[in-house]
Order: sequence, then C-alpha cells, then structure tokens
Amino acid sequence: MGAAIAMAQRGVGLTGVNPSVGCVIVAGGRVVGRGCTAPGGRPHAEAVALAQAGAAAAGADVYVTLEPCAHASLRGPSCADLLVAARPARVVIACRDPDPRTDGAGIARLRAAGIAVSEGACGAAAARPMAGFLMRRRHGRPHVTLKLATSLDGGIALASGESRWITGAAARAHGHLERARADLIVVGRGTLEADWPSLDVRLAGLEARSPARAVLTRGAAPAGWTALADPRAVAATEASTVLVEGGAAAAAAFLAAGLVDRLLLYRAPILIGAGRPALGDIGLATLADAHGRWTLADARALGSDRLEVYERRRD
Amino acid sequence: MGAAIAMAQRGVGLTGVNPSVGCVIVAGGRVVGRGCTAPGGRPHAEAVALAQAGAAAAGADVYVTLEPCAHASLRGPSCADLLVAARPARVVIACRDPDPRTDGAGIARLRAAGIAVSEGACGAAAARPMAGFLMRRRHGRPHVTLKLATSLDGGIALASGESRWITGAAARAHGHLERARADLIVVGRGTLEADWPSLDVRLAGLEARSPARAVLTRGAAPAGWTALADPRAVAATEASTVLVEGGAAAAAAFLAAGLVDRLLLYRAPILIGAGRPALGDIGLATLADAHGRWTLADARALGSDRLEVYERRRD
Repeated sequence: MGAAIAMAQRGVGLTGVNPSVGCVIVAGGRVVGRGCTAPGGRPHAEAVALAQAGAAAAGADVYVTLEPCAHASLRGPSCADLLVAARPARVVIACRDPDPRTDGAGIARLRAAGIAVSEGACGAAAARPMAGFLMRRRHGRPHVTLKLATSLDGGIALASGESRWITGAAARAHGHLERARADLIVVGRGTLEADWPSLDVRLAGLEARSPARAVLTRGAAPAGWTALADPRAVAATEASTVLVEGGAAAAAAFLAAGLVDRLLLYRAPILIGAGRPALGDIGLATLADAHGRWTLADARALGSDRLEVYERRRD
Repeated sequence: MGAAIAMAQRGVGLTGVNPSVGCVIVAGGRVVGRGCTAPGGRPHAEAVALAQAGAAAAGADVYVTLEPCAHASLRGPSCADLLVAARPARVVIACRDPDPRTDGAGIARLRAAGIAVSEGACGAAAARPMAGFLMRRRHGRPHVTLKLATSLDGGIALASGESRWITGAAARAHGHLERARADLIVVGRGTLEADWPSLDVRLAGLEARSPARAVLTRGAAPAGWTALADPRAVAATEASTVLVEGGAAAAAAFLAAGLVDRLLLYRAPILIGAGRPALGDIGLATLADAHGRWTLADARALGSDRLEVYERRRD
C-alpha cells in the first residue's frame, strides 16, 4: 500500500475535482502494473494499472488507495467492472469512497464476483493525497493549508514592514512546490495591495501548474482574481485544495473560522523581536482551548531553515 | 573523547567557577579509569581517573576535555605533575586551558617528560560542558542561555496575560533540569512582580541544585535576589552560567546587548494569535542583520512539545 500511496502523490494538484488515487498490482512477488489518476481525473489509477498488467492481473493482488468506483461514465466503464473482468485474487483498499455513487457499491460488486476484498483503515498517509476530495465529500468545502514563514519568535516582518527574506531559497522553493499542489491560493487584501504577489509557481517544469488566485475582501477583486468575502466562501469555489499564504489577518480569519486543516510552518534561524506577528486575533478565549488541536505530521531541514507540518486533529 | 565529554556533562552546574572536565584512561582496549571534576571544583577529573587506574595508567592513553592544569594549589599537586608521575604513553586533549597559569604550560610539561600529546580541535561538543568557564576566561562574563516557551506562532501568553500552561509537563521538567545546570537565573522586573516565581528546581533529587536568583531592575531587589541594573551586570556576578527565563522585555534586553549565547526554545503545538509575543525590541535594523547568528545544536520531542537548542555563531 505504501507504493500505491506514493503513486497517488504524483497526481496531487492535477486531478481537479477528482481524487488522486494510486494503484499497484502484484503477481508472484513482482509489480506487474501501477498507475495514478491521470491529469484531469481520467483515466483512473486502476484502469492505468490494469492496462499495464494485462493478463498478469488474473489471480494477482491489487492495492488501491480508494475504493474502485462503481459508476460507469461517458469516459469509460467503472473501475469495479474493469477489476471484475481482470479477475484478480484480491483487492486491498485503504479508504472507502464517500461518493454516494460508490460508497461500498464498488466493494460489493467485487465481492459478488468472488474477489476477496480487504478494506484497510483509511490512515492519514493514504488519505493525504486525496485530502481535498475527502473534505469536499465529507464537509462540502476544500481542504485548507495555511502557510506561515516566520522567524524563531514568530515574526513575519520587521516593524518597518521589511519581510524579504526571512526564509532561504530552499524553503521558498518548497513553498512553490506546495503552490503547484493546490487548486487555489488565497491572500488577504492587505498583502495583495502591499505586495501585488503573482503567486505563480516559479519552479522549472512546473510553471504551468500555477493555481487560481483569490483575495479575502468585501470589495471587488482585480482581474484574474476571485474575491472571497469570508473564509467560508472557499466552499463555493471549485477548489478541492486551498493554500492560504497570508498575511496575518487573512491567516487569523481562516483559523478563527476553524477552516485550517494543515499548517506549513517554515522557520528561519533568526530572531526579529518587536516586529509584525504571524497571526492576528484567532478568537482564542483560554489556553485550554488551544491545546489538542494540532499534531506534528512532518519535520525537516530546508537549508538552514526548518519546515514543520502540523495537521488539525478532528477527533 | 566522546566518553570523556559525557563524563564532563555530569559535573555541569556543580563546579562553581571551575570548568567541568571529563577524563577517561584506556589501556589495552579497556577503560581503566574515568572521572569528572568533583562538586566544588576539586579534585580534578584527571586526579579522579588516575586514582581509579592506579598502576594501569602507565603506558595508557589518557583522554581529557581540557588541558591538564600546570599550577599546584593548596588542595593538591597539578594534574600535569600527576600525569607525569603516572607515565601514560599519550594524552589527548580537546581544548587548551585559557587560564594564564596553564595555557600551554600543562602540555609543555607533559611533552618535556616524554609523553606524547595530541591537541584536538576544541569542538563544540567538548567546549559545551565548560562553556561558562571558557566564556569567563575569554570574555570576562558568564555564558548566557535564554529560555523561551512559546506557541507555534511565538506567543508566551494570551492578551489577558494567561500563560499557564503553554508547554506540557515534560518540557517544564526539562526546564527545571536546565535550572539545575545554571549558576544564576535572571528574570525581568515585570515577571517578578506579576508571578513572584520561586525559580527553584522542582525535580526529585535535584532540589538542592536551585541556582541563585537575579532580577533585571534599576531599583532594589527583594531579599534573596540580586538586582542587575543592566544585562551587562551579569559580568560582575560570580556566575559562570546564567539562565534568562523572561519575560519579553528581559529577553529582548539580553539579546539587544548581544549577550545571549544559547537559545532554549520550547514550543507547544498550539496557536495563540493576538497575544503577548516572546520578545520585545531587540534593536534589529534590517533583516540582513538577523541572519547568520544562530545554528541549530539540538532538536527533540518533549511529550507533544518540541525543544530546539540554538547556539550563537561567533565566527
């Protein structure tokens, strides 16, 4: 399943409203087929992997990160039907598909055809590449990542407003990679007016993956930008994954609304002191309310900076 | 040498104005003696290790973190003389002793007696247990550690002042261990008046190691406390190692004076937003001045909190 999850990672940010799924087919101890959801959402991962495997899929083990779809479309048969035709011995599924057109129907169809199905716990690693899809299906809104690039003491600028640069080249490149994986980037009106950020992906080979842009404002948005009157308005966009890039007021507005699912914390080994803090008022009444919300999911060095990724606990 | 450095760690905070030194004696591939500077500063590590080794020290290899002293005292002969009498084949020394009574004289005496001496680079790991001693000798002031316990966004309290607790039990216990390793703890006047902190070591078995207490104030200090009119006044105390525990103004004053050698950064997985920041004005004019000052020396988990230790670069 680890290999299937790694396949799924490849499609993140490319599959639109569809989930990025990974599929690996193993026969006789060898990988005979693998695939991930293609850009735009079709073909599905299982179709790609089955086409690779050909006749070797018969009697094989299929590992797939999301339940195979049970609904045929104009663009082809359902993955459940493709699997029934290929006759694998076993299908191992990490997450059940919350799409009401599938939601267990894919599993039922496989079992009815005599194929063994193991349904695994939908662990954090398997859910991550399709976090946007799952959030859309379960809560009717996109998955939201908040990016903060701060000094060790939580500053994002000097009191003068000087903010270039706090983090170094490696951290900034990583930030561009995160842009490439998002459908929509949001900034606050203050950041838009102060910086007129282009918010594009400046990484060789990924320039075409620059996401759509939105600004948090009750007023009008400039050409090429969407206006969001409130953080909750992201639900009405087409985005499955949103990256909030600042500034402090916009970041705080998303946090206060309880809409941040993931924190990307880039930290430079510097101290700023009295400067501009990373966050405005997030509506916290007591310290007790602040605890238990975030779990560290990743920590790594990026040059002399450090990246920490925290995920919101929703248990 | 790693084993000798580990021995030296044992004496940190116990040796007063003397450095905490470690010594390991190896003969025929076996450790035949080891020692660290005893509480109060005597006997020295070499004397302890040589007493353990006895006749086995003849022809052995001696690893010691600081150059053996060349000056006899009322409390005993010099370590250089003890080593000459014990006749090891070789003495490996990490750091040269900056004390003018030794400063190369210990090495010269060993060599004059026909003992091979290897003088290693005084690396960060070997210097750390005697950081206070080295800072006193080289710069005439104690080694200063600044402790900050913050949220992910650098807050130390809510706007209301509520600050208990940001970090959890494991981080707070670690903070008490750091107190036990310091000679003097400093807080600002605001922290003293708001909290009347006892600043003692609340760890079983270490209660007796509570350090002296000072408050940064131009006024008078309460009984049992020393008043420091300015951060630079730590030079006039007897302390070799100082721990600054806050608040934001005191922390900033030590940073602005360029007196902080080590940062202890305890961070809880919480966000506070608009609250009280960890630092006041540190006198930073441009971001360029902030870079290149700090190097990560350690990072670890303490419960759900994280500790990072940064050391000031002085190159």
